[in-house]
Amino acid sequence: MRIVDIRETTISTGEKRSNAVMDFSDMTTGLVAVVTDVVRGGRPVVGYGFSGTGRYSLNSICRERMIPRILAANPESLLNEAGDNLDPFRVWSCMMQKEKPGGHGDRAVAVATLDMAVWDAAAKIAGEPLYAFLAKRYGNGELPDRVPVYVGGGYYAPGRGLTELQDEIRGHLDDGFTIIKMKIGGAPLDEDLRRIEAVLEVVPADRLAVDANGRFETGEALAYAGAIAPYRLRWFEEPGYPLDFDLQAEVGRGYDGPLATGENLMSTWDAKNLLRYGGMRPNKDYLQFDCALSYGICEYIRTIAMVEEAGWSRRRIYPHGGHLLSLQITAGLALGGTEAYPKTHQPVGGFTDGLRIADGYVGLPDLPGLGFEGKANFYRAVKALGAEDR
Amino acid sequence: MRIVDIRETTISTGEKRSNAVMDFSDMTTGLVAVVTDVVRGGRPVVGYGFSGTGRYSLNSICRERMIPRILAANPESLLNEAGDNLDPFRVWSCMMQKEKPGGHGDRAVAVATLDMAVWDAAAKIAGEPLYAFLAKRYGNGELPDRVPVYVGGGYYAPGRGLTELQDEIRGHLDDGFTIIKMKIGGAPLDEDLRRIEAVLEVVPADRLAVDANGRFETGEALAYAGAIAPYRLRWFEEPGYPLDFDLQAEVGRGYDGPLATGENLMSTWDAKNLLRYGGMRPNKDYLQFDCALSYGICEYIRTIAMVEEAGWSRRRIYPHGGHLLSLQITAGLALGGTEAYPKTHQPVGGFTDGLRIADGYVGLPDLPGLGFEGKANFYRAVKALGAEDR
Repeated sequence: MRIVDIRETTISTGEKRSNAVMDFSDMTTGLVAVVTDVVRGGRPVVGYGFSGTGRYSLNSICRERMIPRILAANPESLLNEAGDNLDPFRVWSCMMQKEKPGGHGDRAVAVATLDMAVWDAAAKIAGEPLYAFLAKRYGNGELPDRVPVYVGGGYYAPGRGLTELQDEIRGHLDDGFTIIKMKIGGAPLDEDLRRIEAVLEVVPADRLAVDANGRFETGEALAYAGAIAPYRLRWFEEPGYPLDFDLQAEVGRGYDGPLATGENLMSTWDAKNLLRYGGMRPNKDYLQFDCALSYGICEYIRTIAMVEEAGWSRRRIYPHGGHLLSLQITAGLALGGTEAYPKTHQPVGGFTDGLRIADGYVGLPDLPGLGFEGKANFYRAVKALGAEDR
Repeated sequence: MRIVDIRETTISTGEKRSNAVMDFSDMTTGLVAVVTDVVRGGRPVVGYGFSGTGRYSLNSICRERMIPRILAANPESLLNEAGDNLDPFRVWSCMMQKEKPGGHGDRAVAVATLDMAVWDAAAKIAGEPLYAFLAKRYGNGELPDRVPVYVGGGYYAPGRGLTELQDEIRGHLDDGFTIIKMKIGGAPLDEDLRRIEAVLEVVPADRLAVDANGRFETGEALAYAGAIAPYRLRWFEEPGYPLDFDLQAEVGRGYDGPLATGENLMSTWDAKNLLRYGGMRPNKDYLQFDCALSYGICEYIRTIAMVEEAGWSRRRIYPHGGHLLSLQITAGLALGGTEAYPKTHQPVGGFTDGLRIADGYVGLPDLPGLGFEGKANFYRAVKALGAEDR
């Protein structure tokens, strides 16, 4: 068996929406299809992947560097020992040939996009949902039938007042979510406190998280921490610049509630430096590394090993992303829970159509691979690559 | 005045050459031309830039993200207060619109490529060599006529023995260099020691630096440090992984001689974390941040300010790169010295043709901008963009 073709395209996913530091109006997303010569159900197995949310399509790097390396490799060098399936770690190493150490940014997205498609194909070849495929090999032996989920929302948008914010949150509760995350830091502190208090009329404080998206300098972060401490919120996310580990540690010393961060650390090494220097507390804080932005599942498995070596439980990891990849690795690698973006970041955000969300849990797709074939808008977009038409 | 066009191309710069961790055989380099409507000497002023050495062309990111933002901007928003020249910092901010924090890798190369061309154009519009343009505004008041230089060489190549290595080093001395850097870590320790001793037959120890290119784990780094300590070499460069600041600090505690690192830290924030956590010693160590790999001159000026705030002299900065950008900023921003790559990384490596190198110093080009018009092989490559044909 072998990879016979890799197709890719970039789609526009811009939205009139922003958080404290980022405007998403020109966003793009990369889609890839890894085509194998394996046939299942009369059709070639095709693995699909997308680029992580919020950082643009990096398919150009795939085209220029990673895809040529994969297609030039001896096909056998990319297979497992039995020779009956792709070995995603071997494909990963092949992609990273002739790449310098350090500098983990856009390349991490490009590699993750292809890595996702390789794992999708491998799980499909094995005839298993990805979470089951992962759980057997890299999990802790458990095979869950649902995982904890929270919903990311509460964005800033022009003309959006407290009533609209409360209505959005009520909608999330109606949809089966129990834990809600809202944005802060895009307005002055007193206005943000009014927004938080408006939401607290709708959800209990221990079910509301707030996310500053790395906006604050140390002083402002501590001011927010002091102002929100009395609410006893679920967590306070990304108070400062993602690489400012001293700030993170200082907020940790001044704020007794749980902190969360990690979505903008795009490699195991950057994650390791957060744990070394950021003062994160293994008994209460959350780690939110984004698999689709940080070299994919192969690297995420290395990150989990690093986290455990540092004395943490992998249950403290809540991957950022809110899409099928985060759901599958949360279930398959025994992580704590997943975010959901049911409406934003389409067609990537959210899970398979009709997947049950209730009581703060989300079910798991009963489809081989990541389950893309069960998410109509995403499947329509990748089907246009024509990889299954033969 | 305004930017009327931005052109770009990618050229192949592969070489049969490797260091301890990297094979350069498929390398590419991006070239850009920022075309203005300003006329000097009867021709439009065009600023040129290239992508930093060792990380491939990232012109695709320029094409997809930065160039459209620049061309869509109100032209006046990119000018200085007087309205008579580009303001590179305003162009830089324009390029970084709608970009998330953290994740400093390929994007840093893309931005640096364009930033270089903007500074080249701005200095040409001012009618000054870039180093003079920089010295007046961001330097320390001095205008040097030469700067310290060292040469990077001593690579591994198939069939290359000690005699060939010594011959190469003698060639560098004949060319006017006095300080030589050679690669280590691509062979076992005992073989590397024989290579070092062979080179020490040709240059004094305090003029020989060694570079491991981030290859070693902590134990191996300490073993090398212990083995080379008796030689009292000029410096020991990049012993471990560029983000492993604990390793860097541990080597510093175990090695009394000077250490050097920083070429794979691609932003001010990553550089800051090296100084916060890497145990670097301001009285003896060298900082080698690469301007062409880390968001360009605007970010480099911020990095210098950060370095000085941390209690260092800017003279401890020896920028990696070995090309005209590193030369110009070393002279214009009063840094300690520059690397040179007179033969490798062509057409980017090295300085203007015939520039005097003697006694370990290199002169400065007497041309507006970076001096690209005085480097025939580079100028031929960028001239092919056709930006001056009108």
